[in-house]
Amino acid sequence: MAPVTNAYPIVPNGEVGFTVEAARMKFGSGMLAELGDDARALGMRRVALFTDPRVAATAPFAAGLASLKAAGLDVVVFDACRVEPTSASFLEAAAFAADGGFDGYVSIGGGSVIDTAKAANLYATHPAPLLTYVNKPLGEGQPVPGPVKPHIACPTTCGTGSETTGVAIFDHVEKQVKTGISSRHLRPTLAVVDPRTIDSLPPGAIAATGFDVLTHAIESHTARPYRTRPRPENSALRPPYQGANPWSDIGSLHAIRLGGEWLERAVNDPADAEARDALMFAATLAGLAFGNAGVHIPHAMSYSVAGMNHSFTATGYEAVDPMVPHGVSVVLNAPAAFRFTGPAAPAAHLRAAEALGADTRGASPEDGGELLATRLIAMMRATGLPNGLSALGYTDADIPGLVTGAAAQQRLLTIAPRPVSDDDLRGLYRDAMRYW
Amino acid sequence: MAPVTNAYPIVPNGEVGFTVEAARMKFGSGMLAELGDDARALGMRRVALFTDPRVAATAPFAAGLASLKAAGLDVVVFDACRVEPTSASFLEAAAFAADGGFDGYVSIGGGSVIDTAKAANLYATHPAPLLTYVNKPLGEGQPVPGPVKPHIACPTTCGTGSETTGVAIFDHVEKQVKTGISSRHLRPTLAVVDPRTIDSLPPGAIAATGFDVLTHAIESHTARPYRTRPRPENSALRPPYQGANPWSDIGSLHAIRLGGEWLERAVNDPADAEARDALMFAATLAGLAFGNAGVHIPHAMSYSVAGMNHSFTATGYEAVDPMVPHGVSVVLNAPAAFRFTGPAAPAAHLRAAEALGADTRGASPEDGGELLATRLIAMMRATGLPNGLSALGYTDADIPGLVTGAAAQQRLLTIAPRPVSDDDLRGLYRDAMRYW
Repeated sequence: MAPVTNAYPIVPNGEVGFTVEAARMKFGSGMLAELGDDARALGMRRVALFTDPRVAATAPFAAGLASLKAAGLDVVVFDACRVEPTSASFLEAAAFAADGGFDGYVSIGGGSVIDTAKAANLYATHPAPLLTYVNKPLGEGQPVPGPVKPHIACPTTCGTGSETTGVAIFDHVEKQVKTGISSRHLRPTLAVVDPRTIDSLPPGAIAATGFDVLTHAIESHTARPYRTRPRPENSALRPPYQGANPWSDIGSLHAIRLGGEWLERAVNDPADAEARDALMFAATLAGLAFGNAGVHIPHAMSYSVAGMNHSFTATGYEAVDPMVPHGVSVVLNAPAAFRFTGPAAPAAHLRAAEALGADTRGASPEDGGELLATRLIAMMRATGLPNGLSALGYTDADIPGLVTGAAAQQRLLTIAPRPVSDDDLRGLYRDAMRYW
Repeated sequence: MAPVTNAYPIVPNGEVGFTVEAARMKFGSGMLAELGDDARALGMRRVALFTDPRVAATAPFAAGLASLKAAGLDVVVFDACRVEPTSASFLEAAAFAADGGFDGYVSIGGGSVIDTAKAANLYATHPAPLLTYVNKPLGEGQPVPGPVKPHIACPTTCGTGSETTGVAIFDHVEKQVKTGISSRHLRPTLAVVDPRTIDSLPPGAIAATGFDVLTHAIESHTARPYRTRPRPENSALRPPYQGANPWSDIGSLHAIRLGGEWLERAVNDPADAEARDALMFAATLAGLAFGNAGVHIPHAMSYSVAGMNHSFTATGYEAVDPMVPHGVSVVLNAPAAFRFTGPAAPAAHLRAAEALGADTRGASPEDGGELLATRLIAMMRATGLPNGLSALGYTDADIPGLVTGAAAQQRLLTIAPRPVSDDDLRGLYRDAMRYW
């Protein structure tokens, strides 16, 4: 059996510490019915409530809205959040916020809704042209000048993580690039995680978001050890993605355990509330872990997988335009990626495999990557996921384009436990074409 | 083997959710040398630096002070913090703070130093008579009206937990009672945990504070399940000590594992930096866990053990007035207490025993309390702790007084997994007199 924790040998001139950002949270079935109390406790009187049309029709949203109104708050709903926010949709939300004179924000939705509320709050509080606060090189990367209004974020999918981060992501349509805004001030004041919000998701969507959670957790756990980064000259220069560390390891490993134990049941039995509770809690832990340690190859490979495919319709997503759900675009790369990273961090991969439910009796650390990949593939088959990238319609002819997209994600690739060349990426995409 | 996590069956009209308070932290060997960066990043220019005379003579303190000065900050040191703060010492510190015109606070010391800085910051920012913000019934219990100045708290003992809580404890000398101030606003803005701060502690002090950490963790893990509390009418009425929950369980269990693996080495080999790093990280995790779940019988029993004894001199504490170190006054009750609570939460006790290093092969949950007690006793013997309360000089004649003190701690006793009567307390003190 692998040791319970990763070892972090000291590296000359390497990093010596790690940071943990603050995240205030509530977790529990039915917690949205307390939103009014929570908003009042934060001093809100006039609230902008962000959501999207699908979520707006659900019972947990109705409970949240009713609670806000019962607490005597003046609530205006903005339900025009786009599933993948753009510069234009951020600007539209910011204009709504600026006109509304709100003293608080509540978001009930997926990462897109939460990110839209962050952006609206920011530009209404500290007005500026859009690119002012957007990350360089696309934006000016100016620091957010100070606190924004209180924001309660309520995720309704598992896997976003946005409810505890200070990041808002959007597509800059003209430049055809995904970018974002990062600031400690954008972190929601309170995250309210109510597992009943995922009851209305079809099994395919539970599978897609559940595997996103699992890969968040496994990528965090197998990330480059924080001590192998050079020590920063100034503590303010420590990056948000620090690599695996003793703090992130605890949450990531527990999330892997919960995913291994409950994901299949959560997908295959919509009536199993206990399984969905566990999956939502795993999502919360994995979100904290990857917000701290970072994610690497499977996520870096996913952007071009999602971006180049405009014809695939995933199970559970029939009602929307053809698209590859984020979690699917990530997990299809994962078995190939973990076979590749296994040799660079054998103990971490073996521990992850064991936590996920692989039979590790008699295994040595060198088997970690293969055991992890095999167990993941078995879970993918058991939950009806596509059999690799070829099932999305990709062929070898697409590999150069896929590699170009992945190679642009250096911010993530540097979190991998070993260097990743373009040649490596070509091999990884080939290996990810078909798994069974 | 016990399941990896506690189960939380739904209880009619019981609690349905739990909260996690925000705590921003840095952890690592040498982190105090970055204090100047951290203070500047929080906007500090004129800093009140709180400590006590022992800590002020250590190398990590010198590194912290040098870093603050190198960053161009104006620093005034207040080193008159008392080991057990009193109303008078809080007032003295508050007067120092009010006169100094500080825009930031740094505390380097044990819980007493950190608590003194919290109080000084509070009364300098929101001036009022001492009892205004002190918890009822002794004080008026008025809410702290708003944020205080930024405060960086740097613990120099393992076990305080104060660096991540919004609580400041002191002795009200005239009323002969320990009380405190509780407010989210008192939580330090940043906790900087540098394991090198405990290098100067003698083995006896490592043992005392290390066992405090361990009992924090075990008490949190075996606490009453949060769902057995009645659901509050308003979310603001949810108490800070919520009982064991899925969040606190993860940190408490990991702290128990680290303590089981490293405590003896940390005590017996002062040169083993890896062991002290692990113990300090366990302290951080246990502090977060007990600040969230709460502690119960061993801590409730400890106040009178410490308060009634004025002649015992603990190993490693020869330089101070005779006293029972807090950790010793706690852990001497722990084996008796866990034998008593075991039957009420068998799986949690068995899991804790296993994490602590007990041989649990073939054991059933009913053995959990006994296995846990036996393993704790073995660790106490191996680190030179006194053999029960009789070794402090207590006899059966002291039991009524000890019980009166413990029975007054209803706030903690209600966190136990079973009701605790005065009769029970009498039996527990008898059982705690001698262990081997």
